[in-house]
Amino acid sequence: MSREADFHALVAALAGDPAARGLADDAAVLVLEAGPLVVTTDLLVEGVHYRAEDPPGDVAWKLVAVSLSDLAAKAARPVGALLGFVLGEAAWDRAFVAGLDEAVTTLGVPLLGGDTVASAAGAPRVLSLTALGTATCDPVPARGGAVAGDDLWVSGAIGDAGAGLAMLAGSLAPDPALVRRYRRPEPRVAAGQALGGLVSAMMDVSDGLLIDAGRIAAASGLAATIALDAAPLSAGYRSAVGEGRDARMGAVTAGDDYELLFAASCTARSAVAKVGATLVLPLTRIGRFDPGGGLTLTDRGVIIPLPDSLGYQHGERRDG
Amino acid sequence: MSREADFHALVAALAGDPAARGLADDAAVLVLEAGPLVVTTDLLVEGVHYRAEDPPGDVAWKLVAVSLSDLAAKAARPVGALLGFVLGEAAWDRAFVAGLDEAVTTLGVPLLGGDTVASAAGAPRVLSLTALGTATCDPVPARGGAVAGDDLWVSGAIGDAGAGLAMLAGSLAPDPALVRRYRRPEPRVAAGQALGGLVSAMMDVSDGLLIDAGRIAAASGLAATIALDAAPLSAGYRSAVGEGRDARMGAVTAGDDYELLFAASCTARSAVAKVGATLVLPLTRIGRFDPGGGLTLTDRGVIIPLPDSLGYQHGERRDG
Repeated sequence: MSREADFHALVAALAGDPAARGLADDAAVLVLEAGPLVVTTDLLVEGVHYRAEDPPGDVAWKLVAVSLSDLAAKAARPVGALLGFVLGEAAWDRAFVAGLDEAVTTLGVPLLGGDTVASAAGAPRVLSLTALGTATCDPVPARGGAVAGDDLWVSGAIGDAGAGLAMLAGSLAPDPALVRRYRRPEPRVAAGQALGGLVSAMMDVSDGLLIDAGRIAAASGLAATIALDAAPLSAGYRSAVGEGRDARMGAVTAGDDYELLFAASCTARSAVAKVGATLVLPLTRIGRFDPGGGLTLTDRGVIIPLPDSLGYQHGERRDG
Repeated sequence: MSREADFHALVAALAGDPAARGLADDAAVLVLEAGPLVVTTDLLVEGVHYRAEDPPGDVAWKLVAVSLSDLAAKAARPVGALLGFVLGEAAWDRAFVAGLDEAVTTLGVPLLGGDTVASAAGAPRVLSLTALGTATCDPVPARGGAVAGDDLWVSGAIGDAGAGLAMLAGSLAPDPALVRRYRRPEPRVAAGQALGGLVSAMMDVSDGLLIDAGRIAAASGLAATIALDAAPLSAGYRSAVGEGRDARMGAVTAGDDYELLFAASCTARSAVAKVGATLVLPLTRIGRFDPGGGLTLTDRGVIIPLPDSLGYQHGERRDG
């Protein structure tokens, strides 16, 4: 058998869902419940979105997690994924499939199809994933739905993945828990669905909390004020990086958090808190929306200058 | 603005469908009619699936056409496409978007989302497209539904794209019409939908008529017999390559035809012919299915040896 056929057989073994048609047809065929469909595509490029030396299983995990995070931000229930895979070194490819198996099983999204192709020799890998989900609330949360007076919330802790990346680059002493947050982000799929009916706007934090909060504000035609001192930091982050202003500024401008960032009316505070308690996931109020435009940053109630870079600029890393 | 933002703005201008959310959200949100959803992902790799010197507009066309051909083979009505794009040289990227505009407009599939990413410098391009369609018949045609006694049919003419590729490689005197068949394949979207209720199995011919017919036979647990002398050749192909046995053998083993290959009961012959007449698209009976397995080739009623290669082997070029 050819390398391509070997790889296809490995992947087909993961695709047990009837909609996948055994990966032996021209397309996947899904029968869905009624309601809006949510679809997202993401690319990961070797050397851009992950490090060539990253374990292949972690790359597979990240590929799936990044797209499921987009679905989570739209309060969607994942129903399937399609993989685009450019073949490379055989042992890497096999390890990738093992990681893909773990990712689709753990994260609960059936593999339904895809395309496997040969690559030009020596070229950096490019991987694609398309994830489909069904809406669990109507309307499906948008970025542009925030209303003046809404609170701004974020899930989990931020900055961990950025610190993990710095650790892999050797600029910070390694902490396996933070490195794992970079390599194996956990998409907030359950939280997204639980919050869907409570939020006025929602997105995931992929490029950095400040830049992404600015996107909700801009899309909603509002001003956002963010309290730097309210940014939720993990114990690991405090220990590795600190909790002073510089450490907090690093956290709110780092990417790859894959936490949920959302606007909700102040009347929803107790309901939001209840979701956090039920899911054992911190949900933290970090700001508010007001009429106007732009982003204001405060620390202990005092306005402070915005950093030169709010995060990864649009498209430098990803835009979906 | 960054190169990435420039490109995103160009693409967003094409994405006027409300489901695209202006390419300014984490995901596309579609409201679909009830019924099965058909989804396919394809990758095109520079130097593998297209030539680096091919016009960017033709590459965009091919990217869209290849996925729509998969939908056509499942009798699906296209409802949207998501693009994965790795940035390269700016003028090429702009010309690609112009071609993409032409492709999605002409082929009638709204652009709903995607991901644009930076690339490692100098790496060959990788492009991905995911196309979604709604089923127009139930069950959705599969590869494995052929029944003993069924006829095997193919749409259009075969071999043209292979001849066009040989012309671009300089091994055949150029004929613009055949080169166009290679660069701008026309997915048989209308024919797929019109045939959906008449066929027992259907796929598109992407790797070569013989190898793809063998896939229908294998998936259906049947033997297929194909009449080489019945293979439909265009006037351009006859003129450029000939119509003898070698020329026919070249046509049935060349890829990139993107014609429909389908099985249908002999009781459906007049209904199939009527579809062809209505759409002004030749539909040609080229073989039959019988109990057993394997592929048999005949020429003027006499069994002849199969060629060494039936077409592009699985995954060498594409598998979805």
